[in-house]
Amino acid sequence: MRFLVAPSGFKESLDACAVADAIAAGIHRAVPGAVVDKVPLVDGGEGSAKALAEATGGTLIPTFVTGPIGEPVPSHFALLGGPGPRTAVVEMAAAAGLRLVPKDHRDPASTTTYGVGELIRAALDLGVDRVLVGCGDSGTSDGGAGALQALGARITDAQGREIERGGAALINARAIDLSDVDPRLDKAEITVACNPHNVLCGERGVARVFGPQKGATPSQVEQLSEALDNWADLLGDVRTIPGGGASGGLGAGLHALNATLVPRFDVILEHSDLDARLPHADLVITAEGAIDGQTPHGKVPAEVARRAKRHGKPVIALAGTIGENARANHDVGIDAYASIIAAPVALDTAMARTAELLTDATERTLRLVLVGAALTR
Amino acid sequence: MRFLVAPSGFKESLDACAVADAIAAGIHRAVPGAVVDKVPLVDGGEGSAKALAEATGGTLIPTFVTGPIGEPVPSHFALLGGPGPRTAVVEMAAAAGLRLVPKDHRDPASTTTYGVGELIRAALDLGVDRVLVGCGDSGTSDGGAGALQALGARITDAQGREIERGGAALINARAIDLSDVDPRLDKAEITVACNPHNVLCGERGVARVFGPQKGATPSQVEQLSEALDNWADLLGDVRTIPGGGASGGLGAGLHALNATLVPRFDVILEHSDLDARLPHADLVITAEGAIDGQTPHGKVPAEVARRAKRHGKPVIALAGTIGENARANHDVGIDAYASIIAAPVALDTAMARTAELLTDATERTLRLVLVGAALTR
Repeated sequence: MRFLVAPSGFKESLDACAVADAIAAGIHRAVPGAVVDKVPLVDGGEGSAKALAEATGGTLIPTFVTGPIGEPVPSHFALLGGPGPRTAVVEMAAAAGLRLVPKDHRDPASTTTYGVGELIRAALDLGVDRVLVGCGDSGTSDGGAGALQALGARITDAQGREIERGGAALINARAIDLSDVDPRLDKAEITVACNPHNVLCGERGVARVFGPQKGATPSQVEQLSEALDNWADLLGDVRTIPGGGASGGLGAGLHALNATLVPRFDVILEHSDLDARLPHADLVITAEGAIDGQTPHGKVPAEVARRAKRHGKPVIALAGTIGENARANHDVGIDAYASIIAAPVALDTAMARTAELLTDATERTLRLVLVGAALTR
Repeated sequence: MRFLVAPSGFKESLDACAVADAIAAGIHRAVPGAVVDKVPLVDGGEGSAKALAEATGGTLIPTFVTGPIGEPVPSHFALLGGPGPRTAVVEMAAAAGLRLVPKDHRDPASTTTYGVGELIRAALDLGVDRVLVGCGDSGTSDGGAGALQALGARITDAQGREIERGGAALINARAIDLSDVDPRLDKAEITVACNPHNVLCGERGVARVFGPQKGATPSQVEQLSEALDNWADLLGDVRTIPGGGASGGLGAGLHALNATLVPRFDVILEHSDLDARLPHADLVITAEGAIDGQTPHGKVPAEVARRAKRHGKPVIALAGTIGENARANHDVGIDAYASIIAAPVALDTAMARTAELLTDATERTLRLVLVGAALTR
């Protein structure tokens, strides 16, 4: 029996490679002699640079950048291996992720993506042809203004002074001067891998959807919404472009530098062989921290399932939390799903044991599958 | 597809009938057109009298008895319907169950089975031929001394005085006088349905195994152990008879009245049609609050699985908690098991939603089985 294991990481708990390993261990317990093909997947967020470097035989390059609250933080980007254009992967979360914002500084109106621009510059220093910017898990809502500034843009207020750091200060922005932007961007291409469901402005925009998650109060949400509206006016036609709202508006900001915004899995799956490997699988197992009604909107398990179904393959999803409206996932090709939780337990306790829970749950799940297989014999 | 649903109740949460109904609802969601045969099972403990009355078309008779701490409590016993000898079911938990012991009185050295004897007397008042005593969920460790006293036995100390209530007082017992025991017991038969793994004395005895669960400190455990040893010497050859340790030694105590101790499922399953129904099932689903390394030692899911395997039927078990060494259950015929828990959650929260969780988990579980069934097509 041949298994394709294509999971996401479990946020703040276990990266995709470790998730795939844990699932593989469970498969071998339940199905001795199983052949397991592991394709750990990332969504552009935390862990993506490392995972893509590993998947392509590339390297991870450490560096220091300005963190989201202005302090220096250790960071990294990836130089991918393999054929094709020389490509760097800049994971925005490695420079401006929510995890880099101390809990008592969680004010999305003041955090910056400056470090993301520094990472892009560091990649350009290595002479790459293409910078793939992974969005997701951001701790910022500055519309990418910080990243633009780090790359040489001048963003000024009515008095011609550089505006301050953070999303709230965008209310004062009156002009963007791109004349000093890093000239290497004339040749190198920036591709932003984003969830196309994320837009910059309006009711489904950054401020209203993600502001509260990142720690904004209702009045901060309103201020931020107005500031991003003002910023959108300066950037041009970006208010509702697909992916413009990715990572607190980083997508829209980089769009001003002629970056191409692409649906994240279209570009990320280029670097895995998922489509090529699917035909060989008898059963596909995917996983993510939670499976719920949001999963079909561009999350890893749903993207894996859609592709698996093109090859007529059965798909099982494992998750820490089976949430509201999870049943919607049956419509996108997830035939069955299971929780890795085996007993009442606190979230923290479960998260500290994700690998073990995954292995045990995979074994339990496959024993159920085997009961079904035996039924028809 | 034909399902046989044969679950236990979930202790302190949902009785076996409600568990069976919740599982059936999940089956119908996953497998439209399924035929579901429900055989809710009891183990002699809480809810057994009611369930057996319902299963046989009998009646539940309310009465008041002396509770485990000496206060009167509302109780009941069952008069079974159907053919055969006129049988009453006395559920010891209805007179001396742990749930009847207030949390701040949980001292197994002082609680009494006196009420159990009163229930037996009340059943004899109705002229029954047989009293089936269901053990399980007891809050007592008095070796059945209270029940014997209620039935007319005199248990005296070195000075010839009646000993006090509770297990600890058994250390003073020097003689048992059965001359005034209820004469109706000459004709009526007492059958004690007990877990044969429970013995009265020694390392696997009542004091050491159940004392701590019932609230005893280590030194109380030692005292109780000595007291029960002394009690065993008076009763005769009961130190390690199978089931003698049931319900804090009630089994051993009633043995002194010529009661027959039988493995609980041998007698309880007489009153369900499990064996007759098994041949018609394609798949058996059982359930209990927890599935762990203790389950094979006489718990409902293991007993159901053993019987199902005689007919070559596949068995799936559902549980709130998948505990330590649950894998041991594969050896007794449980092919696969699943937790009903779908996300990190507190025990209280889960217990308040057992029915809903069971239905959802049954659906998820059967979707996994269907994945397996489709694999072999």
